[in-house]
Amino acid sequence: MEIDAAQRKVLVRDLQRGDSAWESYDQLLIATGAVPLCPDLPGSDAVDICGVNTLESGLEIRRRLDRGGMKKGVVVGGGYIGLEMAEALVRHGLEVSLVNRAPQVMGTLDHDMGALVSQALRDVGVSLYLEETLTAFETRAGKVTGVVTDRRTLPADIVILGLGVRPNTALAASAGIPLGDKGSIRVNERMQTGVAGIWAAGDCAESFHLVSRRPFHIALGTVANRHGRVAGINLGGGYATFPGVVGTAVTKICQMEVARTGLQEEELRELGIEWISAVIKSRTRAGYFPGAGEITVKVLAERGSGRLLGGQIVGMEGSAKRIDTLATALHAGFTVEEMINLDLGYAPPFSPVWDPVVIAAREVAKEL
Amino acid sequence: MEIDAAQRKVLVRDLQRGDSAWESYDQLLIATGAVPLCPDLPGSDAVDICGVNTLESGLEIRRRLDRGGMKKGVVVGGGYIGLEMAEALVRHGLEVSLVNRAPQVMGTLDHDMGALVSQALRDVGVSLYLEETLTAFETRAGKVTGVVTDRRTLPADIVILGLGVRPNTALAASAGIPLGDKGSIRVNERMQTGVAGIWAAGDCAESFHLVSRRPFHIALGTVANRHGRVAGINLGGGYATFPGVVGTAVTKICQMEVARTGLQEEELRELGIEWISAVIKSRTRAGYFPGAGEITVKVLAERGSGRLLGGQIVGMEGSAKRIDTLATALHAGFTVEEMINLDLGYAPPFSPVWDPVVIAAREVAKEL
Repeated sequence: MEIDAAQRKVLVRDLQRGDSAWESYDQLLIATGAVPLCPDLPGSDAVDICGVNTLESGLEIRRRLDRGGMKKGVVVGGGYIGLEMAEALVRHGLEVSLVNRAPQVMGTLDHDMGALVSQALRDVGVSLYLEETLTAFETRAGKVTGVVTDRRTLPADIVILGLGVRPNTALAASAGIPLGDKGSIRVNERMQTGVAGIWAAGDCAESFHLVSRRPFHIALGTVANRHGRVAGINLGGGYATFPGVVGTAVTKICQMEVARTGLQEEELRELGIEWISAVIKSRTRAGYFPGAGEITVKVLAERGSGRLLGGQIVGMEGSAKRIDTLATALHAGFTVEEMINLDLGYAPPFSPVWDPVVIAAREVAKEL
Repeated sequence: MEIDAAQRKVLVRDLQRGDSAWESYDQLLIATGAVPLCPDLPGSDAVDICGVNTLESGLEIRRRLDRGGMKKGVVVGGGYIGLEMAEALVRHGLEVSLVNRAPQVMGTLDHDMGALVSQALRDVGVSLYLEETLTAFETRAGKVTGVVTDRRTLPADIVILGLGVRPNTALAASAGIPLGDKGSIRVNERMQTGVAGIWAAGDCAESFHLVSRRPFHIALGTVANRHGRVAGINLGGGYATFPGVVGTAVTKICQMEVARTGLQEEELRELGIEWISAVIKSRTRAGYFPGAGEITVKVLAERGSGRLLGGQIVGMEGSAKRIDTLATALHAGFTVEEMINLDLGYAPPFSPVWDPVVIAAREVAKEL
């Protein structure tokens, strides 16, 4: 594939016939997605080292597990994919180890909140090897037998890689289309690239972060879906804009729900933004109501202004989607003081009288 | 009890000793709450006609039920209390009838959404008598035996009244304190009444409705709690304001979750506001995820401007607290167009890729 933007033509290769032809276009959409990060390390081409980036790769892992005989699984990477796969391996009866370079899993949370997730993983039987770096794979007859870190070798019948992705932008770059954050394709609010007639959407395209007020690349299905809607409307002659993201993501590891939105401490430090924060523990329902579980909420606000900067939630059933209140408040640019009187839903099966996210905002406001 | 606002004194009656004395005050808080509406109808003082307005009245109903021998329960009123009590009576094994003056239960929802709740009640075995008015009680030897409506007589071993409340403001009115919406005590944002040195908070005090931009009385624990916080801070010499409410409320009837926020059609009609709306059906989780249940969302927006005016949700587990996104958006004054790109949490255990409340907002935006 090749793009000639000046002539508004693309060279299309027919993979079945093996030939190529230049096709002309009026408007071109690049939706090349992202590619998983794969380490180029000794042994990395061995059998049973698996990435999880397509439905087919997920099914393939399941087929291998269903064949039986696998006892030890090693997951490399403590993000969403790594954690969800660790849970899946535990459920398949494997002894599971997880290797993670950072001091806690779930690097999109601050360390204090990530520590709660690390503990939840240990509680379901996952052995964590934190602050360790993958250096090689041990193999026998072309099949993986172990994962080598800078501190030990972990025996493995199957290895799952969850090392993240990078935007797939080689085609765009070769056509001279300007790139932005983390090498993603720079676009305006209508998803137009810097080259006339060419649009981009999805994991290959940049977004705008409404809290940092900076271009920002995030590879998530929700964002890609909204990109696609906006690009599609504009390509079809309509008018739509994608104002940006606030960095919301949720996941579930066994019984524990995890959610985050906005900016975390590490991002704030890099941006030079000073913050205050509070962490509170509350219950998902009225304390006396059956099924009330623990919920921990962290809220961060800008020093001085009190502007909400982000929030993180770890807790039992009913915790994760509470992040939507914080996400909507970030879109609105609310201060934590303005959040105190949010008129949220209360009834004993659903919440304490003060919703946990409001309790956290109130605690931060006290420090202003 | 009596207030002499000019002298800043209150006449306090000691209920145990039976005497009275004038006490002076610097600042006075009126927190007299609300009183349940009780019909003055033939037979209304009979035994086993029960209001539910205190913890003790709830315990008393439970004691009567636990004594056994009760077979038929009649609930009068289709609001939160009526519905929750109907569920409780069904769970205690009674044959339950519910009498409601309006065409659907849950009058804080529009009729189309209320109809879903009416059906859920029928599904758990409650017999509904809609558009019927209570006219009398049948009694024998001072004990209730039936509920008489304008169309029939329903036999009853126990009758539960859930007819709503009115602000308890006789004391305030007698002191010359100005009243407002539905006879509640008029206050400013700091919860000060119109008389110097006198404050009011809770079910007796007025709020401001941020969507209608009018004074508004609502008797809910969450609002009362926030009133109390603001009044307390101000009374203590601090500074806090209560900007107002958006009318959020949630409840649960057996498995069905019900939520509402903002203004409903009847309120909009009275205010002269014209609206457009959409009702969508979606799922509480990704369609393929175990436990995904149906959710129906209605969103209302102002004609022309597209300003969000309100929303209503009826659905299975995981539905109700989604109202918080709409409530927060109402606080922010968002249009439905602005809601389309809200960065809400998505993962298969929690939501479809497009959250149901955003799908509904998007449908309304199409009509703009």
